Amino acid sequence: MKLATIKNTNQDGQLVLVSEDLKDYVEVGDLATTLQDALDLWPAIEEKLLIRYEALNALELTDINKVSDAEFMAPLPRSWQWLDGSLFLNHGTLMQQAFHLEPIEGADSYPLVYQGAGDSFLSGSAPIIAPSEQVGIDFEGEFGVIVGDIPMGSSADYALGQIRLIVMLNDISYRALGPREMKTGFGFVQAKGPTSFAPFAITPDELGRHWHNGRINLPLDVYRNDKWFGSPEGSQMYFGFHELIAHVAKTRPIKAGTVFGSGTVSNADVTKGQACISELRAKEMIATGKPQTEFLKSGEIVHMQVLDQRGKTVFGEIKQHVTVENTDV
Amino acid sequence: MKLATIKNTNQDGQLVLVSEDLKDYVEVGDLATTLQDALDLWPAIEEKLLIRYEALNALELTDINKVSDAEFMAPLPRSWQWLDGSLFLNHGTLMQQAFHLEPIEGADSYPLVYQGAGDSFLSGSAPIIAPSEQVGIDFEGEFGVIVGDIPMGSSADYALGQIRLIVMLNDISYRALGPREMKTGFGFVQAKGPTSFAPFAITPDELGRHWHNGRINLPLDVYRNDKWFGSPEGSQMYFGFHELIAHVAKTRPIKAGTVFGSGTVSNADVTKGQACISELRAKEMIATGKPQTEFLKSGEIVHMQVLDQRGKTVFGEIKQHVTVENTDV
Repeated sequence: MKLATIKNTNQDGQLVLVSEDLKDYVEVGDLATTLQDALDLWPAIEEKLLIRYEALNALELTDINKVSDAEFMAPLPRSWQWLDGSLFLNHGTLMQQAFHLEPIEGADSYPLVYQGAGDSFLSGSAPIIAPSEQVGIDFEGEFGVIVGDIPMGSSADYALGQIRLIVMLNDISYRALGPREMKTGFGFVQAKGPTSFAPFAITPDELGRHWHNGRINLPLDVYRNDKWFGSPEGSQMYFGFHELIAHVAKTRPIKAGTVFGSGTVSNADVTKGQACISELRAKEMIATGKPQTEFLKSGEIVHMQVLDQRGKTVFGEIKQHVTVENTDV
Repeated sequence: MKLATIKNTNQDGQLVLVSEDLKDYVEVGDLATTLQDALDLWPAIEEKLLIRYEALNALELTDINKVSDAEFMAPLPRSWQWLDGSLFLNHGTLMQQAFHLEPIEGADSYPLVYQGAGDSFLSGSAPIIAPSEQVGIDFEGEFGVIVGDIPMGSSADYALGQIRLIVMLNDISYRALGPREMKTGFGFVQAKGPTSFAPFAITPDELGRHWHNGRINLPLDVYRNDKWFGSPEGSQMYFGFHELIAHVAKTRPIKAGTVFGSGTVSNADVTKGQACISELRAKEMIATGKPQTEFLKSGEIVHMQVLDQRGKTVFGEIKQHVTVENTDV
């Protein structure tokens, strides 16, 4: 199934089912009003959603609308919990080399993960409203998953079965503010802006063989101002999403609607490019001693997509303009 | 006003107004179904809630119920954002002395704050279900505030006016897991269990002169198994809540319903005791070279309350039993 949220007067929008070919959608308010409601009710309504999805694909419903006419929000415009991992170890290795940092102890045994803000997720077309260019505005192209209820102490195998939906996201980061917050040990707060999401959240079966072992085996294409920036492969993720979820569930239950992120998609193969500016700057520092590529300025455009083997978009696109408020940080 | 949430079949419960003397309550479903709804709608419904509150206090309503018959949840059973500060610098100073840590650079200029999990807040009477005694089960007695919408770049003065409600909470912490997570720089994830809240969330005016400069000028009483553990004063908070909020709002907007915590209430005056076990252990380490007091074991009871100058409870009580699941961490 493909699910999305269209804008209405409600902060959490209106849940819709989107057809397999991404051309049509239908409201499913009789089953669940919002995506969070659907996730809370999932075991009771999944089968009914699936029947509706098949009827939509067969154009057997009367209230079908055109995707091209819709204004989409993030699939979950707000989330009760957002946990972003750093599951591509290649990214951390490059950062350590570039900044001459000590390796993080246990980084290959325990997935790195920070808790983020779930109060206002942006749509894939919303502007990146940054406080200032001085904060080092960066994007991070990531995959993510949205889960059902997971009891404390659940295994990675159990967690794998509770992955309801897969998403694509841009973890907007303010690089100049990260080092001070990392040094405190308390994690990123000022160093992260609101996260944005591509419009379509899909069930794992939609990916077919491209969903394997808790990883999305497709490249994530990133463009900066229409110039190719990278197409790193999701298959290179060191920990699977199910392993990240089980790590967090060691000491607490996780409730339906929690979103987990992969961290910036990153490959050792340099021909794949990269999904964030800081990684390119790290490569430049390693090669020449200093970074050349600048962070985002006002007016720039970030564009991300994932295409399947037939060249069709999987999650829809993220395409965001940078706007700067020039407030004092 | 005093607000609370009673248990029903909905995950977010049913919003109620509680009388000034904490004896009676009334449902206000015609104004807002849940506390999150009320916070989303606050500017439009505050006046109506206030009129209802005055009628409740005057016993002029027909559908009044007894508080003694009610089962309360956390005021917000789920929150889109939970940010917990460390606003009592005395606590950090003691930790640094005990563990011979370097002072955190800038800790008196920038409030320390970590992002926590908002997906399942516990009621004040819910058991603390810990994975194992080996994790170092601890409580932290804290004050908190719940805010309305705050645009990016808002001043501390503006933030002060957007503080809708004040709460009391127990930030359940697993001390054995904290140091590894702090060293990564990514902040606490496994080191924190679900946070629990006393039942009554009150508007700042209810505190009268005890609400001053973004601080709660009352002691927070903590008991461990009916034995006094501490009564540290909220007045000793180094940063006000409004300063913490403005710090976070520097780089992003904050949405209604976000909860901010004070961190464990902590005083330099040793006769005030302390609001968490790790602080007592730190004092023991400083005095004798090693800690004597153990962390919580299965079956122990944590009890917290705040009394006003007439000896009346302000937020209701937190009283939690410790239960251990003995899962593998």
